[in-house]
Amino acid sequence: MSQGKLYGVGVGPGASDLMTMRSINVLRKVDVIAIPQSSPHVKSVAWRIAEKAVGPVEGQERIFLHFPMTRDPEQTVPAWNIAFAEIETRLKAGKSVAFITEGDPLFFSTYIYLHTHAKEKWPEVEIEVVPAVSSFTAVPSIIQTPIADGQERVAVIPASYGLDDLPAIFRLFDTVLLMKVSSVMPEVVKILEDENLLECSYYVSRATMEFEKVVRDLRSIQNDKCDYFSMIVVSKRGRSGILAGRVASETLGA
Amino acid sequence: MSQGKLYGVGVGPGASDLMTMRSINVLRKVDVIAIPQSSPHVKSVAWRIAEKAVGPVEGQERIFLHFPMTRDPEQTVPAWNIAFAEIETRLKAGKSVAFITEGDPLFFSTYIYLHTHAKEKWPEVEIEVVPAVSSFTAVPSIIQTPIADGQERVAVIPASYGLDDLPAIFRLFDTVLLMKVSSVMPEVVKILEDENLLECSYYVSRATMEFEKVVRDLRSIQNDKCDYFSMIVVSKRGRSGILAGRVASETLGA
Repeated sequence: MSQGKLYGVGVGPGASDLMTMRSINVLRKVDVIAIPQSSPHVKSVAWRIAEKAVGPVEGQERIFLHFPMTRDPEQTVPAWNIAFAEIETRLKAGKSVAFITEGDPLFFSTYIYLHTHAKEKWPEVEIEVVPAVSSFTAVPSIIQTPIADGQERVAVIPASYGLDDLPAIFRLFDTVLLMKVSSVMPEVVKILEDENLLECSYYVSRATMEFEKVVRDLRSIQNDKCDYFSMIVVSKRGRSGILAGRVASETLGA
Repeated sequence: MSQGKLYGVGVGPGASDLMTMRSINVLRKVDVIAIPQSSPHVKSVAWRIAEKAVGPVEGQERIFLHFPMTRDPEQTVPAWNIAFAEIETRLKAGKSVAFITEGDPLFFSTYIYLHTHAKEKWPEVEIEVVPAVSSFTAVPSIIQTPIADGQERVAVIPASYGLDDLPAIFRLFDTVLLMKVSSVMPEVVKILEDENLLECSYYVSRATMEFEKVVRDLRSIQNDKCDYFSMIVVSKRGRSGILAGRVASETLGA
Protein backbone atom coordinates (compact mmCIF):
# COMPACT_ATOMS: atom_id res chain seq x y z
CA MET A 1 0.00 0.00 0.00
CA SER A 2 1.36 3.38 -0.97
CA GLN A 3 -0.68 5.44 1.50
CA GLY A 4 1.21 7.26 4.21
CA LYS A 5 0.30 7.14 7.87
CA LEU A 6 -1.41 9.97 9.75
CA TYR A 7 -0.46 10.84 13.31
CA GLY A 8 -2.27 13.11 15.74
CA VAL A 9 0.48 14.19 18.11
CA GLY A 10 -0.06 16.09 21.35
CA VAL A 11 2.88 18.24 22.38
CA GLY A 12 1.66 18.85 25.92
CA PRO A 13 0.50 21.89 27.85
CA GLY A 14 3.31 24.35 27.14
CA ALA A 15 6.72 23.50 28.55
CA SER A 16 8.79 21.63 25.96
CA ASP A 17 10.11 19.17 28.53
CA LEU A 18 6.55 18.06 29.24
CA MET A 19 6.50 16.44 25.80
CA THR A 20 6.67 12.66 25.89
CA MET A 21 9.50 10.63 24.39
CA ARG A 22 6.99 9.11 21.97
CA SER A 23 5.82 12.46 20.63
CA ILE A 24 9.42 13.59 20.10
CA ASN A 25 10.33 10.30 18.40
CA VAL A 26 7.31 10.44 16.08
CA LEU A 27 8.00 14.06 15.16
CA ARG A 28 11.61 13.21 14.36
CA LYS A 29 10.76 10.29 12.09
CA VAL A 30 7.76 11.49 10.04
CA ASP A 31 8.14 12.89 6.51
CA VAL A 32 5.87 15.86 7.19
CA ILE A 33 4.87 17.86 10.26
CA ALA A 34 1.57 19.69 9.80
CA ILE A 35 1.35 22.73 12.03
CA PRO A 36 -1.93 24.50 12.76
CA GLN A 37 -1.62 28.26 12.98
CA SER A 38 -4.25 30.80 13.94
CA SER A 39 -2.55 33.57 12.00
CA PRO A 40 0.27 33.71 9.47
CA HIS A 41 1.82 36.45 11.60
CA VAL A 42 1.86 34.64 14.94
CA LYS A 43 3.96 31.58 15.61
CA SER A 44 1.95 28.43 16.30
CA VAL A 45 1.86 27.65 20.03
CA ALA A 46 2.14 23.91 19.35
CA TRP A 47 5.17 24.44 17.13
CA ARG A 48 6.82 26.76 19.62
CA ILE A 49 6.57 23.90 22.15
CA ALA A 50 7.72 21.16 19.78
CA GLU A 51 10.46 22.89 17.78
CA LYS A 52 12.84 23.15 20.72
CA ALA A 53 12.57 19.43 21.52
CA VAL A 54 12.49 18.12 17.95
CA GLY A 55 15.17 20.31 16.38
CA PRO A 56 16.01 20.29 12.69
CA VAL A 57 15.34 17.06 10.76
CA GLU A 58 16.97 16.70 7.36
CA GLY A 59 14.53 16.19 4.51
CA GLN A 60 11.49 16.73 6.69
CA GLU A 61 8.79 19.03 5.38
CA ARG A 62 6.96 21.34 7.75
CA ILE A 63 3.68 22.77 6.48
CA PHE A 64 1.80 25.56 8.20
CA LEU A 65 -1.98 25.34 7.98
CA HIS A 66 -4.05 28.38 8.72
CA PHE A 67 -7.12 28.03 10.94
CA PRO A 68 -8.90 31.28 11.84
CA MET A 69 -9.80 31.64 15.53
CA THR A 70 -13.55 31.49 15.04
CA ARG A 71 -16.33 28.94 15.12
CA ASP A 72 -17.98 30.47 12.04
CA PRO A 73 -18.23 27.63 9.48
CA GLU A 74 -18.04 30.21 6.65
CA GLN A 75 -14.41 30.70 7.63
CA THR A 76 -13.45 27.38 9.18
CA VAL A 77 -14.77 25.05 6.47
CA PRO A 78 -12.72 26.62 3.63
CA ALA A 79 -9.63 26.60 5.86
CA TRP A 80 -10.17 22.91 6.56
CA ASN A 81 -10.65 22.16 2.87
CA ILE A 82 -7.22 23.63 2.14
CA ALA A 83 -5.74 21.67 5.06
CA PHE A 84 -7.31 18.40 3.90
CA ALA A 85 -5.95 18.93 0.38
CA GLU A 86 -2.44 19.66 1.64
CA ILE A 87 -2.42 16.61 3.89
CA GLU A 88 -4.02 14.35 1.28
CA THR A 89 -1.35 15.17 -1.31
CA ARG A 90 1.34 14.01 1.10
CA LEU A 91 -0.51 10.89 2.30
CA LYS A 92 -1.22 9.83 -1.31
CA ALA A 93 2.48 10.22 -2.09
CA GLY A 94 3.12 7.65 0.64
CA LYS A 95 4.40 10.15 3.15
CA SER A 96 3.79 10.02 6.88
CA VAL A 97 2.18 13.17 8.26
CA ALA A 98 2.06 14.24 11.93
CA PHE A 99 -0.50 16.91 12.80
CA ILE A 100 0.58 18.54 16.06
CA THR A 101 -1.63 20.10 18.70
CA GLU A 102 -1.05 21.88 21.98
CA GLY A 103 -2.16 19.68 24.91
CA ASP A 104 -3.69 16.30 24.04
CA PRO A 105 -4.97 15.62 20.51
CA LEU A 106 -8.40 14.36 21.66
CA PHE A 107 -9.16 16.97 24.35
CA PHE A 108 -10.52 20.27 22.96
CA SER A 109 -8.07 20.28 20.08
CA THR A 110 -7.92 21.27 16.42
CA TYR A 111 -6.91 17.70 15.60
CA ILE A 112 -10.35 16.28 16.47
CA TYR A 113 -11.94 17.65 13.32
CA LEU A 114 -9.14 16.27 11.17
CA HIS A 115 -9.36 12.91 12.94
CA THR A 116 -13.10 12.54 12.38
CA HIS A 117 -12.93 13.51 8.74
CA ALA A 118 -9.75 11.56 8.03
CA LYS A 119 -11.56 8.34 8.92
CA GLU A 120 -14.32 9.21 6.43
CA LYS A 121 -12.17 10.69 3.68
CA TRP A 122 -9.28 8.26 3.76
CA PRO A 123 -10.65 5.02 5.24
CA GLU A 124 -7.55 3.12 4.13
CA VAL A 125 -5.10 5.46 5.89
CA GLU A 126 -3.68 4.16 9.14
CA ILE A 127 -4.06 6.64 12.00
CA GLU A 128 -2.20 6.79 15.30
CA VAL A 129 -3.01 9.12 18.16
CA VAL A 130 -0.13 10.01 20.48
CA PRO A 131 -1.61 11.10 23.81
CA ALA A 132 -0.08 13.90 25.83
CA VAL A 133 -0.10 15.72 29.12
CA SER A 134 -3.17 17.94 28.92
CA SER A 135 -4.34 20.92 30.94
CA PHE A 136 -6.46 18.38 32.83
CA THR A 137 -3.36 17.27 34.76
CA ALA A 138 -1.01 20.23 34.10
CA VAL A 139 -3.18 22.91 35.73
CA PRO A 140 -3.71 20.93 38.97
CA SER A 141 0.05 20.27 39.14
CA ILE A 142 0.70 24.03 39.14
CA ILE A 143 -1.63 24.70 42.05
CA GLN A 144 -0.62 21.37 43.65
CA THR A 145 -4.25 20.39 44.11
CA PRO A 146 -5.34 16.75 43.71
CA ILE A 147 -7.80 16.21 40.87
CA ALA A 148 -9.51 13.21 42.45
CA ASP A 149 -8.86 10.25 44.69
CA GLY A 150 -10.87 7.49 46.30
CA GLN A 151 -14.57 8.08 45.71
CA GLU A 152 -14.23 11.51 44.16
CA ARG A 153 -15.68 12.69 40.87
CA VAL A 154 -14.40 15.18 38.32
CA ALA A 155 -16.29 17.28 35.78
CA VAL A 156 -14.84 19.24 32.86
CA ILE A 157 -17.18 21.94 31.60
CA PRO A 158 -16.76 24.57 28.88
CA ALA A 159 -18.17 27.30 31.11
CA SER A 160 -19.58 29.46 28.35
CA TYR A 161 -22.06 26.74 27.40
CA GLY A 162 -22.97 25.37 30.80
CA LEU A 163 -23.76 28.18 33.24
CA ASP A 164 -27.28 27.02 34.05
CA ASP A 165 -26.13 23.54 34.98
CA LEU A 166 -23.21 24.62 37.14
CA PRO A 167 -24.98 24.63 40.53
CA ALA A 168 -26.22 21.04 39.96
CA ILE A 169 -22.78 19.97 38.77
CA PHE A 170 -21.06 21.50 41.81
CA ARG A 171 -23.33 19.37 44.00
CA LEU A 172 -22.59 16.13 42.14
CA PHE A 173 -18.83 16.59 41.73
CA ASP A 174 -15.78 17.10 43.94
CA THR A 175 -13.55 18.82 41.42
CA VAL A 176 -14.85 20.91 38.53
CA LEU A 177 -12.55 22.19 35.80
CA LEU A 178 -14.05 25.11 33.92
CA MET A 179 -12.66 25.73 30.43
CA LYS A 180 -13.41 28.64 28.10
CA VAL A 181 -14.14 31.00 30.96
CA SER A 182 -12.96 34.20 29.35
CA SER A 183 -16.28 35.37 27.93
CA VAL A 184 -18.32 34.57 31.07
CA MET A 185 -16.04 35.43 33.99
CA PRO A 186 -18.46 37.76 35.81
CA GLU A 187 -21.25 35.14 35.56
CA VAL A 188 -18.97 32.35 36.77
CA VAL A 189 -17.72 34.42 39.71
CA LYS A 190 -21.32 35.22 40.67
CA ILE A 191 -22.27 31.51 40.66
CA LEU A 192 -19.18 30.54 42.67
CA GLU A 193 -20.06 33.26 45.16
CA ASP A 194 -23.67 32.09 45.44
CA GLU A 195 -22.52 28.49 45.90
CA ASN A 196 -19.96 29.55 48.50
CA LEU A 197 -17.15 28.10 46.39
CA LEU A 198 -14.96 31.14 45.73
CA GLU A 199 -12.60 30.10 48.54
CA CYS A 200 -11.76 26.80 46.85
CA SER A 201 -11.43 28.17 43.32
CA TYR A 202 -8.27 28.95 41.40
CA TYR A 203 -7.76 30.68 38.07
CA VAL A 204 -4.75 29.49 36.12
CA SER A 205 -3.65 30.73 32.73
CA ARG A 206 -0.78 29.61 30.50
CA ALA A 207 0.01 26.67 32.81
CA THR A 208 3.64 25.50 32.41
CA MET A 209 4.23 28.23 29.78
CA GLU A 210 5.99 31.53 29.96
CA PHE A 211 3.81 34.11 31.75
CA GLU A 212 1.99 31.41 33.71
CA LYS A 213 -0.44 33.04 36.13
CA VAL A 214 -2.31 31.79 39.19
CA VAL A 215 -5.05 33.89 40.79
CA ARG A 216 -6.81 32.99 44.06
CA ASP A 217 -9.13 36.00 44.28
CA LEU A 218 -11.29 35.49 41.21
CA ARG A 219 -13.21 38.70 41.92
CA SER A 220 -10.06 40.68 41.23
CA ILE A 221 -9.91 39.57 37.60
CA GLN A 222 -13.55 39.10 36.73
CA ASN A 223 -13.62 42.11 34.45
CA ASP A 224 -10.23 41.52 32.85
CA LYS A 225 -9.71 40.06 29.42
CA CYS A 226 -8.73 36.49 30.21
CA ASP A 227 -6.18 34.44 28.36
CA TYR A 228 -7.27 31.83 25.83
CA PHE A 229 -5.26 29.20 27.73
CA SER A 230 -7.05 29.61 31.04
CA MET A 231 -8.95 27.37 33.39
CA ILE A 232 -10.77 27.68 36.70
CA VAL A 233 -10.33 24.77 39.11
CA VAL A 234 -13.03 24.39 41.73
CA SER A 235 -11.76 21.95 44.31
CA LYS A 236 -14.34 21.05 46.96
CA ARG A 237 -12.48 17.95 48.13
CA GLY A 238 -11.28 18.12 51.68
CA ARG A 239 -10.40 14.53 52.43
CA SER A 240 -7.64 12.13 51.61
CA GLY A 241 -8.19 8.93 49.69
CA ILE A 242 -7.04 6.74 52.52
CA LEU A 243 -9.99 7.74 54.69
CA ALA A 244 -12.47 8.49 51.93
CA GLY A 245 -14.79 5.66 52.94
CA ARG A 246 -15.43 7.26 56.28
CA VAL A 247 -16.52 10.67 55.12
CA ALA A 248 -17.86 10.09 51.65
CA SER A 249 -21.47 9.59 52.66
CA GLU A 250 -21.50 12.95 54.43
CA THR A 251 -19.98 14.93 51.61
CA LEU A 252 -20.82 13.12 48.40
CA GLY A 253 -24.36 11.88 48.96
CA ALA A 254 -26.47 13.47 46.25
CA MET B 1 18.39 25.31 54.41
CA SER B 2 19.44 21.69 54.62
CA GLN B 3 16.04 20.18 53.79
CA GLY B 4 15.83 18.18 50.58
CA LYS B 5 13.15 18.70 47.97
CA LEU B 6 10.21 16.34 47.44
CA TYR B 7 8.93 15.50 43.95
CA GLY B 8 5.70 13.74 42.99
CA VAL B 9 6.51 12.31 39.58
CA GLY B 10 3.99 10.72 37.24
CA VAL B 11 5.47 8.11 34.92
CA GLY B 12 2.47 7.93 32.61
CA PRO B 13 -0.09 5.26 31.76
CA GLY B 14 2.14 2.29 31.01
CA ALA B 15 4.38 2.57 27.95
CA SER B 16 7.82 3.85 28.95
CA ASP B 17 8.00 6.16 25.93
CA LEU B 18 4.91 7.98 27.16
CA MET B 19 7.00 9.37 30.01
CA THR B 20 7.79 13.05 29.64
CA MET B 21 11.30 14.42 29.29
CA ARG B 22 10.82 16.25 32.58
CA SER B 23 9.92 13.11 34.52
CA ILE B 24 12.96 11.30 33.13
CA ASN B 25 15.24 14.26 33.90
CA VAL B 26 13.95 14.57 37.47
CA LEU B 27 14.32 10.84 38.08
CA ARG B 28 17.89 10.95 36.80
CA LYS B 29 18.95 13.85 39.02
CA VAL B 30 17.34 13.12 42.41
CA ASP B 31 19.26 11.49 45.25
CA VAL B 32 16.47 9.05 46.06
CA ILE B 33 13.63 7.45 44.09
CA ALA B 34 10.81 6.24 46.35
CA ILE B 35 8.86 3.43 44.73
CA PRO B 36 5.42 2.33 45.96
CA GLN B 37 4.85 -1.39 45.81
CA SER B 38 1.68 -3.33 46.55
CA SER B 39 3.60 -6.47 47.44
CA PRO B 40 7.26 -7.28 48.08
CA HIS B 41 6.89 -10.15 45.60
CA VAL B 42 5.49 -8.20 42.65
CA LYS B 43 7.45 -5.55 40.81
CA SER B 44 6.01 -2.03 41.12
CA VAL B 45 4.10 -1.05 37.98
CA ALA B 46 5.40 2.52 38.19
CA TRP B 47 8.98 1.31 38.48
CA ARG B 48 8.58 -1.16 35.62
CA ILE B 49 7.57 1.84 33.47
CA ALA B 50 10.30 4.18 34.70
CA GLU B 51 13.28 1.86 35.04
CA LYS B 52 13.65 1.33 31.30
CA ALA B 53 13.70 5.06 30.57
CA VAL B 54 15.77 6.17 33.55
CA GLY B 55 18.42 3.45 33.57
CA PRO B 56 21.07 3.10 36.24
CA VAL B 57 22.17 6.28 38.06
CA GLU B 58 25.37 6.16 40.05
CA GLY B 59 24.98 6.94 43.73
CA GLN B 60 21.20 7.11 43.54
CA GLU B 61 19.24 5.29 46.21
CA ARG B 62 16.03 3.50 45.31
CA ILE B 63 13.73 2.65 48.18
CA PHE B 64 10.72 0.37 47.89
CA LEU B 65 7.78 1.28 50.06
CA HIS B 66 5.10 -1.29 50.73
CA PHE B 67 1.45 -0.24 50.45
CA PRO B 68 -1.11 -3.04 50.82
CA MET B 69 -3.89 -3.00 48.19
CA THR B 70 -6.69 -2.19 50.60
CA ARG B 71 -8.54 0.84 51.87
CA ASP B 72 -8.57 -0.51 55.44
CA PRO B 73 -6.88 2.17 57.58
CA GLU B 74 -5.72 -0.53 60.02
CA GLN B 75 -3.33 -1.64 57.29
CA THR B 76 -2.74 1.52 55.28
CA VAL B 77 -1.94 3.91 58.14
CA PRO B 78 0.95 1.80 59.53
CA ALA B 79 2.33 1.37 56.00
CA TRP B 80 2.22 5.12 55.48
CA ASN B 81 3.92 5.75 58.82
CA ILE B 82 6.85 3.63 57.70
CA ALA B 83 6.90 5.42 54.33
CA PHE B 84 6.84 8.86 55.99
CA ALA B 85 9.74 7.90 58.26
CA GLU B 86 11.84 6.57 55.36
CA ILE B 87 11.22 9.69 53.29
CA GLU B 88 11.71 12.07 56.22
CA THR B 89 15.13 10.61 57.03
CA ARG B 90 16.30 11.38 53.49
CA LEU B 91 14.74 14.85 53.32
CA LYS B 92 16.27 15.82 56.67
CA ALA B 93 19.66 14.70 55.38
CA GLY B 94 19.23 17.27 52.60
CA LYS B 95 18.48 14.70 49.93
CA SER B 96 16.01 15.16 47.10
CA VAL B 97 13.34 12.44 46.95
CA ALA B 98 11.08 11.61 44.00
CA PHE B 99 8.01 9.52 44.75
CA ILE B 100 6.87 7.91 41.50
CA THR B 101 3.35 6.94 40.54
CA GLU B 102 1.76 5.26 37.55
CA GLY B 103 -0.32 7.78 35.55
CA ASP B 104 -0.48 11.33 36.91
CA PRO B 105 0.47 12.05 40.53
CA LEU B 106 -2.72 14.00 41.30
CA PHE B 107 -5.29 11.72 39.60
CA PHE B 108 -6.30 8.68 41.68
CA SER B 109 -2.76 8.04 42.81
CA THR B 110 -0.87 6.86 45.88
CA TYR B 111 1.07 10.12 45.83
CA ILE B 112 -1.96 12.20 46.84
CA TYR B 113 -1.85 10.97 50.42
CA LEU B 114 1.87 11.70 50.68
CA HIS B 115 1.38 15.13 49.12
CA THR B 116 -1.35 16.18 51.55
CA HIS B 117 0.55 14.99 54.59
CA ALA B 118 3.92 16.27 53.40
CA LYS B 119 2.55 19.81 53.45
CA GLU B 120 1.43 19.35 57.06
CA LYS B 121 4.40 17.33 58.33
CA TRP B 122 7.20 19.17 56.59
CA PRO B 123 5.90 22.68 55.88
CA GLU B 124 9.39 23.91 55.08
CA VAL B 125 10.05 21.25 52.42
CA GLU B 126 9.75 22.42 48.82
CA ILE B 127 7.44 20.22 46.75
CA GLU B 128 7.20 19.91 42.97
CA VAL B 129 4.56 17.93 41.12
CA VAL B 130 5.56 16.64 37.68
CA PRO B 131 2.35 16.03 35.70
CA ALA B 132 2.01 13.09 33.34
CA VAL B 133 -0.09 11.51 30.66
CA SER B 134 -2.93 9.88 32.60
CA SER B 135 -5.54 7.29 31.66
CA PHE B 136 -7.80 10.30 31.07
CA THR B 137 -6.06 10.90 27.73
CA ALA B 138 -4.34 7.52 27.19
CA VAL B 139 -7.50 5.40 27.11
CA PRO B 140 -9.29 7.62 24.54
CA SER B 141 -6.14 7.56 22.37
CA ILE B 142 -6.31 3.75 22.23
CA ILE B 143 -9.92 3.70 21.04
CA GLN B 144 -9.30 6.86 18.97
CA THR B 145 -12.35 8.54 20.46
CA PRO B 146 -12.35 12.27 21.16
CA ILE B 147 -12.77 13.12 24.85
CA ALA B 148 -14.43 16.48 24.26
CA ASP B 149 -14.55 19.37 21.86
CA GLY B 150 -16.53 22.56 21.42
CA GLN B 151 -19.38 22.64 23.90
CA GLU B 152 -18.94 19.12 25.23
CA ARG B 153 -18.62 18.06 28.84
CA VAL B 154 -16.67 15.25 30.47
CA ALA B 155 -17.28 13.41 33.73
CA VAL B 156 -14.91 11.06 35.54
CA ILE B 157 -16.69 8.78 38.00
CA PRO B 158 -15.39 5.98 40.22
CA ALA B 159 -18.26 3.67 39.24
CA SER B 160 -18.36 1.67 42.45
CA TYR B 161 -19.40 4.74 44.40
CA GLY B 162 -21.68 6.44 41.94
CA LEU B 163 -24.16 3.98 40.44
CA ASP B 164 -27.27 5.83 41.58
CA ASP B 165 -26.17 9.07 39.99
CA LEU B 166 -25.10 7.60 36.65
CA PRO B 167 -28.37 8.12 34.74
CA ALA B 168 -28.42 11.82 35.68
CA ILE B 169 -24.74 12.17 34.80
CA PHE B 170 -25.23 10.52 31.40
CA ARG B 171 -27.86 13.13 30.67
CA LEU B 172 -25.64 16.08 31.65
CA PHE B 173 -22.40 14.88 30.02
CA ASP B 174 -21.16 13.93 26.55
CA THR B 175 -18.30 11.69 27.60
CA VAL B 176 -18.25 9.74 30.84
CA LEU B 177 -15.13 7.89 32.00
CA LEU B 178 -15.93 5.20 34.54
CA MET B 179 -13.04 4.14 36.77
CA LYS B 180 -12.98 1.30 39.32
CA VAL B 181 -15.56 -0.72 37.42
CA SER B 182 -14.32 -4.19 38.33
CA SER B 183 -16.54 -4.77 41.36
CA VAL B 184 -19.72 -3.42 39.76
CA MET B 185 -19.55 -4.52 36.12
CA PRO B 186 -22.97 -6.25 36.00
CA GLU B 187 -24.64 -3.19 37.54
CA VAL B 188 -22.87 -0.81 35.15
CA VAL B 189 -23.80 -2.91 32.10
CA LYS B 190 -27.41 -2.96 33.27
CA ILE B 191 -27.50 0.86 33.58
CA LEU B 192 -25.83 1.34 30.18
CA GLU B 193 -28.41 -1.03 28.69
CA ASP B 194 -31.32 0.83 30.31
CA GLU B 195 -29.92 4.16 29.10
CA ASN B 196 -29.39 2.77 25.61
CA LEU B 197 -25.68 3.54 25.81
CA LEU B 198 -24.09 0.12 25.36
CA GLU B 199 -23.45 0.85 21.68
CA CYS B 200 -21.24 3.82 22.49
CA SER B 201 -19.36 2.22 25.37
CA TYR B 202 -15.87 0.75 25.37
CA TYR B 203 -14.01 -1.22 27.99
CA VAL B 204 -10.25 -0.73 27.98
CA SER B 205 -7.78 -2.34 30.34
CA ARG B 206 -4.01 -1.91 30.63
CA ALA B 207 -4.02 0.96 28.10
CA THR B 208 -0.60 1.40 26.43
CA MET B 209 0.77 -1.54 28.50
CA GLU B 210 1.50 -5.11 27.59
CA PHE B 211 -1.73 -7.13 27.37
CA GLU B 212 -3.76 -4.02 26.56
CA LYS B 213 -7.37 -5.04 25.89
CA VAL B 214 -10.30 -3.28 24.21
CA VAL B 215 -13.82 -4.72 24.44
CA ARG B 216 -16.84 -3.35 22.57
CA ASP B 217 -19.45 -5.83 23.77
CA LEU B 218 -19.50 -5.11 27.48
CA ARG B 219 -22.08 -7.83 28.08
CA SER B 220 -19.48 -10.41 27.09
CA ILE B 221 -17.22 -9.56 30.03
CA GLN B 222 -19.66 -8.46 32.68
CA ASN B 223 -19.08 -11.53 34.81
CA ASP B 224 -15.31 -11.68 34.31
CA LYS B 225 -12.79 -10.54 36.86
CA CYS B 226 -11.73 -7.17 35.48
CA ASP B 227 -8.24 -5.76 35.56
CA TYR B 228 -7.31 -3.15 38.15
CA PHE B 229 -6.17 -0.82 35.33
CA SER B 230 -9.47 -0.71 33.50
CA MET B 231 -11.87 1.99 32.40
CA ILE B 232 -15.19 2.22 30.59
CA VAL B 233 -15.56 5.12 28.16
CA VAL B 234 -19.12 6.15 27.36
CA SER B 235 -18.98 8.45 24.37
CA LYS B 236 -22.33 9.95 23.44
CA ARG B 237 -20.84 12.69 21.30
CA GLY B 238 -21.69 12.50 17.65
CA ARG B 239 -20.73 15.89 16.37
CA SER B 240 -17.56 17.66 15.44
CA GLY B 241 -16.38 20.78 17.18
CA ILE B 242 -16.52 22.90 14.07
CA LEU B 243 -20.30 22.58 13.86
CA ALA B 244 -21.04 22.11 17.54
CA GLY B 245 -22.98 25.34 17.81
CA ARG B 246 -25.58 24.09 15.36
CA VAL B 247 -26.51 20.90 17.08
CA ALA B 248 -25.66 21.53 20.71
CA SER B 249 -29.09 22.69 21.75
CA GLU B 250 -30.65 19.48 20.45
CA THR B 251 -28.28 17.11 22.14
CA LEU B 252 -26.93 18.89 25.18
CA GLY B 253 -29.93 20.78 26.51
CA ALA B 254 -30.53 19.51 30.02
